[in-house]
Amino acid sequence: MSAEETAAFLDTVQEEILALGEDLLHKADEESALGLERLRGERDRTVNQIKMFSNLVREGSWVDARIDTPQPDRKPVPKPDVRRMLQPLGAVAVFGASNFPLAFSVAGGDTASAFAARNPVIVKAHPAHPGTSELVGDAIARAVEKRSLPSGTFSMLHGMKPEVSIGLVTNPNVKAVAFTGSQRAGRALYNVAAQRPEPIPVFSEMGSVNPVFLLPSVLANHAEAVAEGVYRSVTLGVGQFCTCPGLMFAVEGEGLQKFEDHLAKQTEQGIPGTMLNAAVAKGFGSEFDKAASVPGVRVTIALRESDPQKTEGRPGVLTTEAQTWIKHQELHEEIFGPATVVVRCGSQAELLECASALEGTLTATLHGTPEEIESSRELLSVLNRKAGRLIANGYPTGVEVGFAMQHGGPYPASTDPRFTSVGAAAIYRFARPLCFQNFPDPALPAELQNANPLRIWRMIDGRLTKDAVPQ
Amino acid sequence: MSAEETAAFLDTVQEEILALGEDLLHKADEESALGLERLRGERDRTVNQIKMFSNLVREGSWVDARIDTPQPDRKPVPKPDVRRMLQPLGAVAVFGASNFPLAFSVAGGDTASAFAARNPVIVKAHPAHPGTSELVGDAIARAVEKRSLPSGTFSMLHGMKPEVSIGLVTNPNVKAVAFTGSQRAGRALYNVAAQRPEPIPVFSEMGSVNPVFLLPSVLANHAEAVAEGVYRSVTLGVGQFCTCPGLMFAVEGEGLQKFEDHLAKQTEQGIPGTMLNAAVAKGFGSEFDKAASVPGVRVTIALRESDPQKTEGRPGVLTTEAQTWIKHQELHEEIFGPATVVVRCGSQAELLECASALEGTLTATLHGTPEEIESSRELLSVLNRKAGRLIANGYPTGVEVGFAMQHGGPYPASTDPRFTSVGAAAIYRFARPLCFQNFPDPALPAELQNANPLRIWRMIDGRLTKDAVPQ
Repeated sequence: MSAEETAAFLDTVQEEILALGEDLLHKADEESALGLERLRGERDRTVNQIKMFSNLVREGSWVDARIDTPQPDRKPVPKPDVRRMLQPLGAVAVFGASNFPLAFSVAGGDTASAFAARNPVIVKAHPAHPGTSELVGDAIARAVEKRSLPSGTFSMLHGMKPEVSIGLVTNPNVKAVAFTGSQRAGRALYNVAAQRPEPIPVFSEMGSVNPVFLLPSVLANHAEAVAEGVYRSVTLGVGQFCTCPGLMFAVEGEGLQKFEDHLAKQTEQGIPGTMLNAAVAKGFGSEFDKAASVPGVRVTIALRESDPQKTEGRPGVLTTEAQTWIKHQELHEEIFGPATVVVRCGSQAELLECASALEGTLTATLHGTPEEIESSRELLSVLNRKAGRLIANGYPTGVEVGFAMQHGGPYPASTDPRFTSVGAAAIYRFARPLCFQNFPDPALPAELQNANPLRIWRMIDGRLTKDAVPQ
Repeated sequence: MSAEETAAFLDTVQEEILALGEDLLHKADEESALGLERLRGERDRTVNQIKMFSNLVREGSWVDARIDTPQPDRKPVPKPDVRRMLQPLGAVAVFGASNFPLAFSVAGGDTASAFAARNPVIVKAHPAHPGTSELVGDAIARAVEKRSLPSGTFSMLHGMKPEVSIGLVTNPNVKAVAFTGSQRAGRALYNVAAQRPEPIPVFSEMGSVNPVFLLPSVLANHAEAVAEGVYRSVTLGVGQFCTCPGLMFAVEGEGLQKFEDHLAKQTEQGIPGTMLNAAVAKGFGSEFDKAASVPGVRVTIALRESDPQKTEGRPGVLTTEAQTWIKHQELHEEIFGPATVVVRCGSQAELLECASALEGTLTATLHGTPEEIESSRELLSVLNRKAGRLIANGYPTGVEVGFAMQHGGPYPASTDPRFTSVGAAAIYRFARPLCFQNFPDPALPAELQNANPLRIWRMIDGRLTKDAVPQ
């Protein structure tokens, strides 16, 4: 498949998804309760992601073409002509996520990036939205047919039993796995793949605690505004984002008290929201209760009770002291839903101690003046090692899809922090370099031919250029 | 550590290795029997590899800096400022290889690339050359001291027991492992790392069968010259290279007979060579005998007996038919030493059948006219999926250290074919992206600051440039 054919296929996929129109949004809302507005935004994001990869592939330089020119007269041995570029890895198994029935599901970023790298894809549909999955799967299948591609380019499986997933991951033709979901399931797939006769990479993106550090000036001057921002981010989408900020750290004092009071007020007035399904709502309840029952933890919860008929999640805040948090592993784990834990530190040193006790996380956020952030070198140096993305004066929810995004962090945030599951760089999960030595020019892929017919960026003898190879 | 400090450290490491002078070469020869000439070449390669990484780090663009500029007015939500670059992964455990006591050992490509990516390194010295390892380890330790780096930047362990290796790989501070050696040991380390609470990447480069395909024109016109070339490559360094060409495939006929006769003549006149140590010589003997005892395999071996006192390896060639080869897994496995297996195919279709039956391999080689190679589309499409490097009219031994080299192939050649253990790209094994969102400019690493003070290539909004960020 040429770059142009690949790009044209991706274009057709996104056209077919758009052609599903409102039917897709209504089906997704019926199955996820996420609401039409959110789902319209998610559909646009899904389509835009596919367009981004189509543009990336059409531009072509992503293949990291490298050419080392020969020196036939070199002593003691001639220097060969060596060229390399990225090639498809092979069939990719994609596991849809429940919390993004479009953007991280059948035609989400995993599928789009695997296609962009010219791999066939087999999707394991998430059982929480089988109808949405069928609609999108049919749209992809129509695109495969319209572009006259082999029917094996795309397939989809349904199934609740672990055997379906294990069978997919252990199939010898599958060469990589992408998963978004719980730590338990993500690690299980990783373990299965690592035990294959031929081990394969598993990119499990398993959610995260996303700590937020509130520095003194913010507590002194903007405690209420930040409390409102935090509350909005924690409860966005009923807290069902892997970037939901689940931990707050600050040094105790008047400012922190003001922040806590305001966050408590917001929380008490909070409205329970319908969660993705009964299992998610039940999981949220039990994770919240487990953390709330740790001695030394104070609980603030929305005054309005949740409606069990609607599988609602009720916003809640837990507050505790640094040493209690450090001692209790239950408080380090993600509570998947609209809740956060505020950790009061006795001093800056204790705040650093907390940062050091964090496990790997997708994001870490600092609120403070530019000068405060710049001078937080010790804290930043700890967080550098813990997170995939550092945010200043913002909130971790809302993952921008771009060239520079990194969505993936040290374990247990993901199984391989060297790769991202969001943004253009996600394509690198599904490609491997292939090297050609002393090959005749016409036998080389177009990307590596002397004339550079595709006009892509290439590294020739270590220098980036769009020029032809000097003859 | 800044880029300049890292480069200066690498420069000092190579100066300290050169300062060891002839003592290093004599000690390495004493422990490996590889000979002073070869070891001088290997020492130069080792030093040149370190220089290559020092240049790469000083130039600085390898960090893949990406900047997506903000759009504060975007609807429905503002577009943030997102920047990312590669950061160190953490402490890297490097296992020295027995067959390259310098270039793939204490200060070999793994250590150099891990240092270049600013990681500390812990070397597990290979028990076959402890004295050489001590000399080089001391040289690195002196460089650490001269550049006033923390003493933990480099350390080294000795030990024959598996517990030493397992203890190193399971240490929670170790974040990646690089290994060159046998499939058994490489896979064992991979398994241990995959079972850690926090799994980490293991880059095991485990050797290979390196098939060679002889196309009709070569057999018709150059059978003797290619037989000589093959024999030289098979016996180079007493066959103790992971790129030793261990399998030959060709369609039977007059040309192949001529090739076989000439290869047999060379082999019979061959001189047994001293191998790295008694275990390697014994392993070679038993692997060769196991393959030779398969019914339907004919054996040609050097007439001069090997001297068991000298732990010599005796050049040998095994010849068989395609269907025998396909049926017998013993003939698919690497014979580590000066031996190769010639597989006679009844037709081009049978040759393709053999190619499809290959396991993953570091390299695959074709000998033929440019037209023959260009028109071997089916064969190339099979080999594309099997190998990390495709060679035309050359020999796989002699791995060029450059920007475009790929040394690593589908399993069982290596545990992760997405990465190379030789060449500039080897640095990418030991780095992960870190993203900064809405960070104040002075708090960013120099590589990501608006002004581009290091003058590196960066991707700004998807375009490669050395310009500053437009304000």
